[in-house]
Amino acid sequence: MQFHHHGYVTTDPRIQPAAGLGLDRPDELPDEMDLLIVGAGPAGILLAAQMSQYPTINTRIIERRGGRLEMGQADGIQARSVETFQAFGFAERVIAEAFHLTAMNFWSTDPDDPSRIVRTQRTVDDPDGFSEFPHLIINQARVIDYFAEAARFGPGRIAPDYGWELIDLKVLPEGERPVEVTLRRTAGEGAGEERTVRAVYVVGADGARSAVREALGMRLEGTQAMHAWAVLDALAVTDFPDIRTKCQVQTPKGGIQLIPREGGHLFRMYVDLGEVDESDRGAVRSTSLDAAIAKANEILAPYTLDVRHVPWHSVYEVGHRLTSRFDDVPADEVGTRAPRVFIAGDACHTHSAKAGQGMNVSMQDTFNLGWKLGQVISELSPASLLDTYAAERQVVAKNLIDFDREWSTMLTKDPAEIPPDELAEFYVKTAEFPAGFRTHYAPSIITGRDQHQALATGFPLGKRFHSAGVVRVADANPMELGHHARADGRWRIYAFADGARPADSPALQEWAEWMLDAGDSPLGSFNPADAELDALFDVKVVFQGRHDEVDLRAVPTLFLPRVGPFDLIDYEKVHATDPARDIFSERGVARTGALVVVRPDMYVAHVLPLAARDELTAFFALSMRSTGGS
Amino acid sequence: MQFHHHGYVTTDPRIQPAAGLGLDRPDELPDEMDLLIVGAGPAGILLAAQMSQYPTINTRIIERRGGRLEMGQADGIQARSVETFQAFGFAERVIAEAFHLTAMNFWSTDPDDPSRIVRTQRTVDDPDGFSEFPHLIINQARVIDYFAEAARFGPGRIAPDYGWELIDLKVLPEGERPVEVTLRRTAGEGAGEERTVRAVYVVGADGARSAVREALGMRLEGTQAMHAWAVLDALAVTDFPDIRTKCQVQTPKGGIQLIPREGGHLFRMYVDLGEVDESDRGAVRSTSLDAAIAKANEILAPYTLDVRHVPWHSVYEVGHRLTSRFDDVPADEVGTRAPRVFIAGDACHTHSAKAGQGMNVSMQDTFNLGWKLGQVISELSPASLLDTYAAERQVVAKNLIDFDREWSTMLTKDPAEIPPDELAEFYVKTAEFPAGFRTHYAPSIITGRDQHQALATGFPLGKRFHSAGVVRVADANPMELGHHARADGRWRIYAFADGARPADSPALQEWAEWMLDAGDSPLGSFNPADAELDALFDVKVVFQGRHDEVDLRAVPTLFLPRVGPFDLIDYEKVHATDPARDIFSERGVARTGALVVVRPDMYVAHVLPLAARDELTAFFALSMRSTGGS
Repeated sequence: MQFHHHGYVTTDPRIQPAAGLGLDRPDELPDEMDLLIVGAGPAGILLAAQMSQYPTINTRIIERRGGRLEMGQADGIQARSVETFQAFGFAERVIAEAFHLTAMNFWSTDPDDPSRIVRTQRTVDDPDGFSEFPHLIINQARVIDYFAEAARFGPGRIAPDYGWELIDLKVLPEGERPVEVTLRRTAGEGAGEERTVRAVYVVGADGARSAVREALGMRLEGTQAMHAWAVLDALAVTDFPDIRTKCQVQTPKGGIQLIPREGGHLFRMYVDLGEVDESDRGAVRSTSLDAAIAKANEILAPYTLDVRHVPWHSVYEVGHRLTSRFDDVPADEVGTRAPRVFIAGDACHTHSAKAGQGMNVSMQDTFNLGWKLGQVISELSPASLLDTYAAERQVVAKNLIDFDREWSTMLTKDPAEIPPDELAEFYVKTAEFPAGFRTHYAPSIITGRDQHQALATGFPLGKRFHSAGVVRVADANPMELGHHARADGRWRIYAFADGARPADSPALQEWAEWMLDAGDSPLGSFNPADAELDALFDVKVVFQGRHDEVDLRAVPTLFLPRVGPFDLIDYEKVHATDPARDIFSERGVARTGALVVVRPDMYVAHVLPLAARDELTAFFALSMRSTGGS
Repeated sequence: MQFHHHGYVTTDPRIQPAAGLGLDRPDELPDEMDLLIVGAGPAGILLAAQMSQYPTINTRIIERRGGRLEMGQADGIQARSVETFQAFGFAERVIAEAFHLTAMNFWSTDPDDPSRIVRTQRTVDDPDGFSEFPHLIINQARVIDYFAEAARFGPGRIAPDYGWELIDLKVLPEGERPVEVTLRRTAGEGAGEERTVRAVYVVGADGARSAVREALGMRLEGTQAMHAWAVLDALAVTDFPDIRTKCQVQTPKGGIQLIPREGGHLFRMYVDLGEVDESDRGAVRSTSLDAAIAKANEILAPYTLDVRHVPWHSVYEVGHRLTSRFDDVPADEVGTRAPRVFIAGDACHTHSAKAGQGMNVSMQDTFNLGWKLGQVISELSPASLLDTYAAERQVVAKNLIDFDREWSTMLTKDPAEIPPDELAEFYVKTAEFPAGFRTHYAPSIITGRDQHQALATGFPLGKRFHSAGVVRVADANPMELGHHARADGRWRIYAFADGARPADSPALQEWAEWMLDAGDSPLGSFNPADAELDALFDVKVVFQGRHDEVDLRAVPTLFLPRVGPFDLIDYEKVHATDPARDIFSERGVARTGALVVVRPDMYVAHVLPLAARDELTAFFALSMRSTGGS
């Protein structure tokens, strides 16, 4: 956390100084705005938190509910989401509050006594160390709370406008704010009244029944599988010994997925209600809570479940559906005009809750979109950057639905059809996907081609930057290199030096000099003239030596930029190698050095040699406007 | 964090349900109260946070300032304090916000060129792993903020009454509330007006010029050393390469102690102003900021310090002073009557800031006192328990002043008198003291004698319980055993089993049965009849086997107590050994099992064999009232 550089901060430094529209943000929803976010669920509120880092952009977020969400449905937080929380500054608080999922056990009918279940397998969560962060379970309402705080504490001081729903929207052929939106007051004074507002861009994060999607004439398409589940959050007394461990129980009588929850007592249980006939037409949804609990007891025999309190329950049939588009530009018009309206999260993709994916993928949708909107509305990038949102996220949604269909189908099978060890094996083998790290963006204007991947094999292009340990030179603090990344819309360039020390690193020295001085470097070409040196590009260096071998006085000034009104030196960009966890070895970085370029949403955009100057500038030129330089 | 067991908690679970007086706490300071805390600095506010866990006790805390402290002087946070923050529930937030001190470097005059300084030594902070927590630097104002939040979020809902100062107090010979206190309004409406309130107990945490101490007729006694220092918090541009590392610079021109601060830019600098003649009479205190900065530049040559902003600075002479008593009972009356008034923190001990100790020792003063007041006012313990506060903390204060005198004297010496490597050696050799772990309470009614210490050599009696890694059986979560301890006033009993699994642990089984069923066990003797099983004693077990070897169904019910209105099972008391960090080996625990008893303030009170039943009850009988049992 960096602060005090604009003067002494006496209160919580998480409250960033207000700036731009955040200095005097009107409480009332205005008639005109730059960006309107529809829906303050996980996808919408993450986007609001992101846009609060762009305080000159007039962003508003409306929510149909009259106030804060009290209890949500989603609860699975994959490690990729915790990494994202880290970038937004609240990971440590969620980690302290949530349930930590470190294991999954499998239970099945005892072959020797079919009246009872037995534990057939124990598996470890993330045995491969995909992330330094844990896999968590916590209610979506709390995730929203934390993002809402980040939105409110960011320079833009964004807070949801509760009690408004979107009725319709039209994209007009011209005008500065071409999206005309009809809203209706849902709560409070004037409930039922309608008004029209205009925005430059609109994002629909308004759930499976998205009014934004409807207004664009799009539908969720796919099958409505005919398998029904009851889900309940419960406080219970039981002799089932794994009640605090994630479990999959499979019996010929049906299955249960058990997920312990935050706080040490609550758990969630998905109870298999079996195949539903086509003619059922949703009748299964009237299954009573008592019937679901009775079914659970039947499946868990000889163990019993004495349910004492159920704060939430529901019955649903599994559906796997996807929209054909993620924005308002039809496939045959892509490239001819930029999108004005986007949809994200459940508005685009719905599926079972079995793999704990929904909230996570939804948040990554808007984390992908936010910085692009920030760049484009700030006129730092051409509007064509916005095309990449649908191109990238549609593939992810398709993969999610395929994965979830496979997994949730397996979970409805009889143990006779699918042996328990096969289920456990599939779970372990595919663990990278539910952890959130299988996303792999294809080459585009923001993801380079992999001709230099050999220079940093542990940072695969198009995948998220996998943090590793380093030591900060200035204060000898061991740290995760990736944790310095904040959700601030900036690109990161990690320069891995060609030597142990500055004096041994001629290629690094030359590159740093060029970055700083050349008119055709990324800084020279794209950094606004009045901006600080690291306004667009947060450039860091990692030397191959130990921290006590690196003399700060010999480090190029590119890595020690001046900041704030006192023109102070930022010492947090210069790193050495931790002898106990050599990042060059752990991530396969060439000893001749390398540049690893990371997008604002934490995905590896490029790997290049230190000498590849033209390629570096050319890569950024694909998505950035030239400014004449700083 | 355990919650949801009284029903679903939708908001921040750190906000505990209000109870007792917290349900309807009056804003106005009442005329009568159980406990009056004078002063809302670190010592006072910690005590308020502690007392908020005793919501039936009417505690108030007054503070002379009209509102929140904006900037304090202290900034060093030893690992022991971070452990304490953990118990109060906010360690992870301070850790995220503070500077992490991992190294200290020593600089001295270059023997080859006396016009310049050179780095003579690098040392590592806490190389011996005294704690799993870091050594931090953060302003006292933020520490107070976090404790104030804990006080406000605790069941007692305690918040400071700002704008009141203590003028006088008298301890009357009798009456339910024998302490009569005269207060004066210092701010707001009615400023200057006086009123009288009455309390059962008063704690003076009102600083070096303590009015409570004065009212008791006590003084700080000791020498006023004649060495002067300027201290400044600064934002500066410098070519001194270790500006972000704690440094001791010693030259014949004087010395500097440099301490980097939170946020990455600010640092604190203690600049040696040299010996002060007896006739100076404080004239040195008028040394200007410019003169201090000029002196710093002189000492740091050839490096330069271009100071851009100084949010705070001061000049002082080092004094080492201590009161003769910590409560209102003179030495010759100890044991004849219980104390009614206590002083804590700077009111008892003042010394240099050089070892970064003041705030830390002050907080441990009231952490020592809080649970004792809680026990006594709740009538769970006799008032004689309160005698142990002065007995224990006076020794600590004396050791602190001796240590600080030695260290700060060394820091004023010329490098010719004390070679730099000797200084570094002293720093490393004595590191346990400034880290906060040298406190070693003598045998008393709350610290047993060490005849069974051999059963757990890594948990020395009278020292703080040194956490170690275990695995929670119910959810396979690896964790620090010590982190389950909360500042809730409860005793902890860690039962180390005599076997790998419940079935292999006959001594443990027998002990657990006795604890639960016998009228003469600590539960039978002291737990109030209407209280939950773990109301006074938080009893945990650690088995020698791996988590997957421990069958929860065979674990004695003592370790799976029922909690809350739904009578749910608490699964967080049963642990297994982490094969990667075997706690039995790491802490020298006998394979025949052992009981380790830990006080509410986290100090090891006793080590006993599992079979030592009479001894266990007898030990608690020294400080607890028999209730007839639960």
